[in-house]
Amino acid sequence: MWAFARADPRKAVFAAKVGLALALISLLVFLREPRDIVSHSVWAILTVVVVFEFSIGATLSKGFNRGLGTLTAGGLALAVAELSKNLGKLEEVILIISTFIVAFSTTLMKLHPKMKPYEYGFRVFLLTFCYVMVSGYNTGKFTDTAVSRFILIAVGAAVSLGINIGIYPIWAGEDLHNLVAKNFTGVAKSLEGCVDGYLKCMEYERIPSKILVYQAWDDPLYSGYRAAVEASAQEETLLGFAIWEPPHGAYKGMNYPWRNFTKVGGALRHCSFAVMALHGCILSEIQAPPESRKIFSAEIHRVGVEGAKVLRELGDKIKTMTKLSSSDILAEVHLAAEALQKRIDEKSYLLVNIERWDTSKQAEGIKEVINGTGIVAKEKKNEVMEPTIVDQTSGHHSKSFAVNSFLSRHDSASTVDSFKLLSWPARRSFHPSLPLEDDESKTYESASALSLATFASLLIEFVARLQNVVNAFEELSDKAKFKEPVEEPVTTGEGDGGFLHKICRFVGITS
Amino acid sequence: MWAFARADPRKAVFAAKVGLALALISLLVFLREPRDIVSHSVWAILTVVVVFEFSIGATLSKGFNRGLGTLTAGGLALAVAELSKNLGKLEEVILIISTFIVAFSTTLMKLHPKMKPYEYGFRVFLLTFCYVMVSGYNTGKFTDTAVSRFILIAVGAAVSLGINIGIYPIWAGEDLHNLVAKNFTGVAKSLEGCVDGYLKCMEYERIPSKILVYQAWDDPLYSGYRAAVEASAQEETLLGFAIWEPPHGAYKGMNYPWRNFTKVGGALRHCSFAVMALHGCILSEIQAPPESRKIFSAEIHRVGVEGAKVLRELGDKIKTMTKLSSSDILAEVHLAAEALQKRIDEKSYLLVNIERWDTSKQAEGIKEVINGTGIVAKEKKNEVMEPTIVDQTSGHHSKSFAVNSFLSRHDSASTVDSFKLLSWPARRSFHPSLPLEDDESKTYESASALSLATFASLLIEFVARLQNVVNAFEELSDKAKFKEPVEEPVTTGEGDGGFLHKICRFVGITS
Repeated sequence: MWAFARADPRKAVFAAKVGLALALISLLVFLREPRDIVSHSVWAILTVVVVFEFSIGATLSKGFNRGLGTLTAGGLALAVAELSKNLGKLEEVILIISTFIVAFSTTLMKLHPKMKPYEYGFRVFLLTFCYVMVSGYNTGKFTDTAVSRFILIAVGAAVSLGINIGIYPIWAGEDLHNLVAKNFTGVAKSLEGCVDGYLKCMEYERIPSKILVYQAWDDPLYSGYRAAVEASAQEETLLGFAIWEPPHGAYKGMNYPWRNFTKVGGALRHCSFAVMALHGCILSEIQAPPESRKIFSAEIHRVGVEGAKVLRELGDKIKTMTKLSSSDILAEVHLAAEALQKRIDEKSYLLVNIERWDTSKQAEGIKEVINGTGIVAKEKKNEVMEPTIVDQTSGHHSKSFAVNSFLSRHDSASTVDSFKLLSWPARRSFHPSLPLEDDESKTYESASALSLATFASLLIEFVARLQNVVNAFEELSDKAKFKEPVEEPVTTGEGDGGFLHKICRFVGITS
Repeated sequence: MWAFARADPRKAVFAAKVGLALALISLLVFLREPRDIVSHSVWAILTVVVVFEFSIGATLSKGFNRGLGTLTAGGLALAVAELSKNLGKLEEVILIISTFIVAFSTTLMKLHPKMKPYEYGFRVFLLTFCYVMVSGYNTGKFTDTAVSRFILIAVGAAVSLGINIGIYPIWAGEDLHNLVAKNFTGVAKSLEGCVDGYLKCMEYERIPSKILVYQAWDDPLYSGYRAAVEASAQEETLLGFAIWEPPHGAYKGMNYPWRNFTKVGGALRHCSFAVMALHGCILSEIQAPPESRKIFSAEIHRVGVEGAKVLRELGDKIKTMTKLSSSDILAEVHLAAEALQKRIDEKSYLLVNIERWDTSKQAEGIKEVINGTGIVAKEKKNEVMEPTIVDQTSGHHSKSFAVNSFLSRHDSASTVDSFKLLSWPARRSFHPSLPLEDDESKTYESASALSLATFASLLIEFVARLQNVVNAFEELSDKAKFKEPVEEPVTTGEGDGGFLHKICRFVGITS
């Protein structure tokens, strides 16, 4: 408990604030002695306990709901009571029927999806209505009940708001801001991790079943983007509270564009789905052989590093509420993606399986040459290969790699922690309508080579999606009037600024 | 309102149940007249309003929290009151200090992530403690307050539970079951839509910005898998309630494996991320030319159809709680995926850009042949090409396609509805360190060809992930003791059953 409080002191402060508010309310009850008010004192306490929420926005929104619900329900209950008074004997019947009707229609409205933010208000409405009816009927003093209840709720709400805003306020808007900025770092970390892992031919000994069934897990690659993907609901909740908050701190202006923060979060989420797909390549059964990964290693690595840099920079800009210093934040990562694409073009013969081309004249022609230059090709392949993988009598190294990795993964598959992942290639081998073994192995060989192309083009897709994030960020920074970056020179125009900026960045890379 | 109630009659029924419960409680208050009890009658009403939740599980969980919170808080408050009584003058100070301490520690514990399911219990604990303290101090009758409050809460809870379970009960477990089954259909629909859309070269006129920033939108492709992805939180909530529910209906046994339903949902989610990546290929800037899509059309289509069929069948099995009839539910889709992979192998020369290969001997050799058989190759290409795309003097049809699609998409990009998506290729054209125009266009040409390979291998990855879903389903069907399928012949063994099953399936396809 102590460690928990130390980890986030805001929570301890909040708890102390709740204690203070309740102690204060108790004190008020002890001091004043008008018997009538005190018998309703429970309402003040109830209000504090219920309305005192962690963030200011949540407190205001709940307080508003409570106030509105109490007022309207009180009014309605008084009206019904006045009407029923004149009916003599029928009074009780009217009271019960009206309770049923009000409860029915309130509950039905509460369940409508559009009424979700006001759910609490409906609850309070129903509660107040019933209470005023019953209590008023018993004492015969409908108006007194409604009024004293309202006064005590107002006292409770005033104490809650005063203490919650007056002492160390916790703003939902600030939480939203920090959450969005934090997710940038998480996705950047996942991206780097995926790229590095892929290039290092990282393999999960056994794929944790928690990833396969989408449960939270402590794998660092996984948790980074998962946090961004999962933040969706949390961002919506915080947005719902933030729009209630008055201007404060760095968030000036009445209509602060909180919605744009969630938009940036959403654009980042769209990006992190691309990172998720990259991670999928690492989790996949069919893996590209290490030697071909090596050939593209430098370019893939560069895209990963530049992409992560852009994400980190954007996260930093959001954190510090600074505009982009120049419009070419994506220039480097675009160059890197283009270099990767070029490299793939130059080496794409490594990604396809020439032996299996069909018998069209074009394909036949190419095949002939392959056979002519076959020895050269093999030499080239061996050149870049790991010495451990030497078992290819007919060049099937990718297959042997795939099968090895498959075995190493599923040897231990019977442990509780991991799924019995009898996967596709393995299953095929005891399928009745099986084609020739050799034929099959070649299919997986070429699938494994193409999987590298998939990784690369997902990486390029990721880069393309960064543009959305930048757009969403620019919209946010305009609407929220972020401050201009300090390093922008005020003298000349674009040309110089861009140049200076590029030098700064260049130094930043090399140092 | 009327339409809303008709759309889901359960909601109207629930609203009527709430009305009935409240009317009943009001009636109890009217009938009995022990003054002491009636002044606390608010607690019975409050309990009904607060505890009466939509599903039985939620009602039980809240009722348990409320009961436990009230009992422990009442006990603690009585103990503190007894202690402070002997202190005379210090009594009030002790009461206020103890209020502060209890409020502080309760609130801090409530905020701990592990205490999330018991949050309501802590709230009730705090409320009861304060109420008993204040009310008891005023009246001097601590024990009476605590006891009568407890009795009334018990009455309220009993009425709530009785009506909620007795009349048309709504079970959270059933909702969870239906939600998981429904998501299978949604993902199947998305998968088919993505595959069909890709083969029809569907393009978004302008990509709805809501997709790019991950907001709910009514695109049918998008909403299908988005529902499965977003269901995560809802499944967890329903699980939290379902485990409270006693055995009922088809869900027999004390420890019903509700957790396995969410596991199946998670495995499906893992699949739907692959569908999401497929949709990403349609949204992507870089698109494969229609003529090469045509070449692979039959195989891609088959995988899509078979994959969707597997998903629908699994969804159906979950819905009807039936075990898999034979172990080869994935056989057809695996054959389809394999056929696709083979087709790619045979035609992979269409996916790479031979002109740009580097100057290694192997590459040079192939290039020579290409030049020799160039005319044949061009003939072949023209054969499958759309008549409208004729502007390729040097075979750059994919580039012209990409640029056209790019223009058509972003002409209208300034409308409010869609992002100003100044994307990567366009940006590059006014970048200072631009390489030669011609060079660049070739880069996009080959990127566009490879994007087809990406789509295909994502599709194959999707098929591989189906295995997890089947595994999770089998675990569920074992633990939950699903019924055996009816079509299983009981006479002989595997062979016949498989054969019969295959015939049934074959008829199903052709009819």
